[in-house]
Amino acid sequence: MKKSSKWLNKVQWDANGLVPVIAQQASTNDVLMFAWMNREALEKTVELGEAVYWSRSRKKLWHKGEESGHFQKIIDIRLDCDADVVLLKIEQVGDIACHTGRHSCFFQQLNSAEGEWIADAQ
Amino acid sequence: MKKSSKWLNKVQWDANGLVPVIAQQASTNDVLMFAWMNREALEKTVELGEAVYWSRSRKKLWHKGEESGHFQKIIDIRLDCDADVVLLKIEQVGDIACHTGRHSCFFQQLNSAEGEWIADAQ
Repeated sequence: MKKSSKWLNKVQWDANGLVPVIAQQASTNDVLMFAWMNREALEKTVELGEAVYWSRSRKKLWHKGEESGHFQKIIDIRLDCDADVVLLKIEQVGDIACHTGRHSCFFQQLNSAEGEWIADAQ
Repeated sequence: MKKSSKWLNKVQWDANGLVPVIAQQASTNDVLMFAWMNREALEKTVELGEAVYWSRSRKKLWHKGEESGHFQKIIDIRLDCDADVVLLKIEQVGDIACHTGRHSCFFQQLNSAEGEWIADAQ
């Protein structure tokens, strides 16, 4: 094990070797997206200074922006009290985090009175 | 099924019937904590107007604040593009979300140069 990766042992990886990751825009605090990392993804994220996730559907590392150009520059990496959730504070290249082309993935809002989800609510 | 709970079918529950939930302070956009909900927890959250999670360790519903008084008043409920992550915008009673007594659970910060996590970083 590399000396530099000792800090990775602090993370409480789940039964699949993954940790949930929240990506938050550093300048506005907007929550942009949610994804997963394995140990290698988190290590590469720190090495590159850009977010690298684990794609559960494609079962491989996913350097966010590698196809879209919408890279996420790392500003700050946080770990929660139980050490089992990571919060990334990032600078979002292109200001678009969502694969739908939107700023944030959280564009559906519950209208609880009507019992429905509203897309692209402000 | 109650008419009012149709919107719950939109959520893509995981193999354990759960969905990851991010709790964000509405007034500051601070990310305060991360937890899980099952269908009943999300339904009760809307009914009460306060966050109700599913405790995976205790295997029961957990009305946040029931012991500490640190309830989370619901301001907005968002669903992500894949409908498998919920974002709650809340008003945090007491301004304390973490069971350690801190404002936010994300108080550990990576110092990547030193390869260590710093508690209570600003």
